[in-house]
Amino acid sequence: MSLLANTPEPPYYAVIFTSSRTEGDNGYGEIASRMIELAEQQPGYLGIESAREALGITVSYWTDLESIKNWKANAEHMEAQKTGRKLWYKSFKVRIAKVERDYGI
Amino acid sequence: MSLLANTPEPPYYAVIFTSSRTEGDNGYGEIASRMIELAEQQPGYLGIESAREALGITVSYWTDLESIKNWKANAEHMEAQKTGRKLWYKSFKVRIAKVERDYGI
Repeated sequence: MSLLANTPEPPYYAVIFTSSRTEGDNGYGEIASRMIELAEQQPGYLGIESAREALGITVSYWTDLESIKNWKANAEHMEAQKTGRKLWYKSFKVRIAKVERDYGI
Repeated sequence: MSLLANTPEPPYYAVIFTSSRTEGDNGYGEIASRMIELAEQQPGYLGIESAREALGITVSYWTDLESIKNWKANAEHMEAQKTGRKLWYKSFKVRIAKVERDYGI
């Protein structure tokens, strides 16, 4: 299995989530895995790519803005977002972007 | 210094580069650092964020598509792209996306 998300022809949407973590796990690992599992079940979900060193980057791909909005408003996800702001992240940035073109090998 | 790129108000552009590396360094480390240094000098460059685990993700931010096109056509960068395809990457994907909205803490 490739780790690269197998996205369709553009256009589609990317949510670029970059973050700097606080010290300690504080329940993060378990909830992070659960959020990926949950995202995969949402309508409009296309794929996810993730890596963390000093900085964490998770890019999730979606068919349209409506799907992203619905995922943001998912009850279990909202709970995780609240804990993220309070506990897990020193800083983070969410960027919502329309993928216009892609290529690769 | 925050590791999160200090980008301006949207709209601006993101180049999402995700990759899976081959074994061994093969000169990658040195050229990768040089490419970041070189990107920072380009017109329209706004910032860069990078992390690698099994998968590598580098997101660079740009004011417009013209700047991205010029950076892709930079002679030294083209040489690196050629070596990347030949030597460093098992697979990669480049996605060019227009950032429409952002928020964070």
